[in-house]
Amino acid sequence: MILGGGSGTRLWPASRKALPKHLLPLMPDGGTLLGAAVARGQRVAQHVLIVTAESQREMTAAVAPQATIVAEPVGRNTAAALGLAAATIEVTDPEGVMVVLPADHFVADEAGLAAVLERGLGAVERDDVIGTVGITPTHPETGYGYLETEPEAARHGVVPVKRFVEKPDRATAELYLASGRFLWNAGMFCVSVRRLLGELAEHLPATAAAVRAIAAGTASAAEVYPTLRSISIDHAVMEHAERVVTVPASVGWDDLGSWAAVPALRGTDEHGNTVAGTVVAVDSSGNVLMTDDDTVLATVGVNDLIVVKSGNAILVIRKDQAQEVRRVVEALSARGLARYL
Amino acid sequence: MILGGGSGTRLWPASRKALPKHLLPLMPDGGTLLGAAVARGQRVAQHVLIVTAESQREMTAAVAPQATIVAEPVGRNTAAALGLAAATIEVTDPEGVMVVLPADHFVADEAGLAAVLERGLGAVERDDVIGTVGITPTHPETGYGYLETEPEAARHGVVPVKRFVEKPDRATAELYLASGRFLWNAGMFCVSVRRLLGELAEHLPATAAAVRAIAAGTASAAEVYPTLRSISIDHAVMEHAERVVTVPASVGWDDLGSWAAVPALRGTDEHGNTVAGTVVAVDSSGNVLMTDDDTVLATVGVNDLIVVKSGNAILVIRKDQAQEVRRVVEALSARGLARYL
Repeated sequence: MILGGGSGTRLWPASRKALPKHLLPLMPDGGTLLGAAVARGQRVAQHVLIVTAESQREMTAAVAPQATIVAEPVGRNTAAALGLAAATIEVTDPEGVMVVLPADHFVADEAGLAAVLERGLGAVERDDVIGTVGITPTHPETGYGYLETEPEAARHGVVPVKRFVEKPDRATAELYLASGRFLWNAGMFCVSVRRLLGELAEHLPATAAAVRAIAAGTASAAEVYPTLRSISIDHAVMEHAERVVTVPASVGWDDLGSWAAVPALRGTDEHGNTVAGTVVAVDSSGNVLMTDDDTVLATVGVNDLIVVKSGNAILVIRKDQAQEVRRVVEALSARGLARYL
Repeated sequence: MILGGGSGTRLWPASRKALPKHLLPLMPDGGTLLGAAVARGQRVAQHVLIVTAESQREMTAAVAPQATIVAEPVGRNTAAALGLAAATIEVTDPEGVMVVLPADHFVADEAGLAAVLERGLGAVERDDVIGTVGITPTHPETGYGYLETEPEAARHGVVPVKRFVEKPDRATAELYLASGRFLWNAGMFCVSVRRLLGELAEHLPATAAAVRAIAAGTASAAEVYPTLRSISIDHAVMEHAERVVTVPASVGWDDLGSWAAVPALRGTDEHGNTVAGTVVAVDSSGNVLMTDDDTVLATVGVNDLIVVKSGNAILVIRKDQAQEVRRVVEALSARGLARYL
């Protein structure tokens, strides 16, 4: 199951409300992150089901013609989306096991991740756990949630999760990194359909009932879905569930939360620049320089900048402030320029 | 007489081979530098004659319908252009006096400059000198030529010029500034038609004969003009002429030799940014930010940059390296991308 309904502006101006990150041709070969996620799923699963937004149904089908597509009439966060997927699978395969993959992440080592997921699936089938993927941290990142683990209780490379923790501040992140007990929560899960719907029925009963009714055809998604509580699966289920485990993974994972992550995906040239389109970089290094539509982008003497021209917008931002694209998005909204979003 | 035939890429990507700086809508009111130069000339002269390139004849006529336009079939530098203008004027007014103004300079204090030019014209009529405009230097600029003067011999605000000096290195420029004897050569002159053609006949006789034949209609400009020597009026005449004077001027003059000069022309907002078009600047100061065609330009956390989007090109350059646009121009040529010039 691929979570592909998000819309986001963290990669604005390439990502827009109508064209989210996972549908952009960001991969070095011109492919999309969604396409990569579908291939990722096919390594470990027999069927691929994508939950997406109604507005993205056509683009999603074009990228993944082999997948089953379930469209949400409105976004209701991940608890509802996973519930809808599980209820849809339950109709034909009540004993099924899901691997949940976000559509917009990058993984350098796909074979490594497949092995991690297989290990998680093994634990699900053996012990009916909820299996997560815990990325071994490489730095004290404050932008991710963490999994606190019990490494001393590891068995077959599977580690019990003691608790889910929210994005920490810098000092806490450094403690997490030093402890060796904390992993990044990558938002990838293995879980049986039966267990997931059971947890939902316990913690979010209205959602569990609604998604089952929608899947059975006895309720209209357009009517019922908008009434569901908008809450993440982490908050609704994971933080309360027993028997949650994780498989530590060092697979070159990145959630591409900002333009600063793009060099990891696309690589850099001999000057440390990541370029796309017609770019002339003079005395410039460590930049992300992307342009489209036969517009040339020329730089002189600039370092560690992100410059992206996409359609009718240009972004220039310091790489170490790449998260602050949201402030441009806010400013555009505030100034009546939302047509650029 | 306005020298308006230049093509340049120092303000690339706004200026292009087909659209030089003086025809761009750079003025705060959307007007052109050429338009400002025509108005400048009209303050002190009865007629305005513009020497321009054949390829710019139509655009020039559109900006200055009241001017006489003389088109050069090819550019042959300023000695030939001034000669052609003088010979053209000589046909109807052999006793005429010319004020020579570059088309692509900016002057903040037009009334002040008019007074300076009137003073120069008075000296021309009184003593048949060549009168120049000497800009009082504000910093040790290495990008301009200088006039060495004899301030102790000043009379009525008119100062003898001892010699023309080329662009100095930094140390020399500092000596010039400290001495109080050196002024910037602004490329503006007052001279009688008779004297200018006499000097040309002495120092560049083939050119003098050719421009007179073209003006008289006894030679074809298309045939003769390309054979003329390409040399500046400074090198051909000024550096050798006797009785050259200058009128010191502090009039907010700028030759707009790079994007770094644009704030002087267009002003800055409360964050020290000079903006044009739809611009969103977050935590950004001291920048020149210009865009066109309804393309939004958004910046976050950048300082002292020049970012210009014009047509099918974007330039990002550090303000203190603004002269280095030429390296982009060279790189575009070298990479077969001259269509962007």
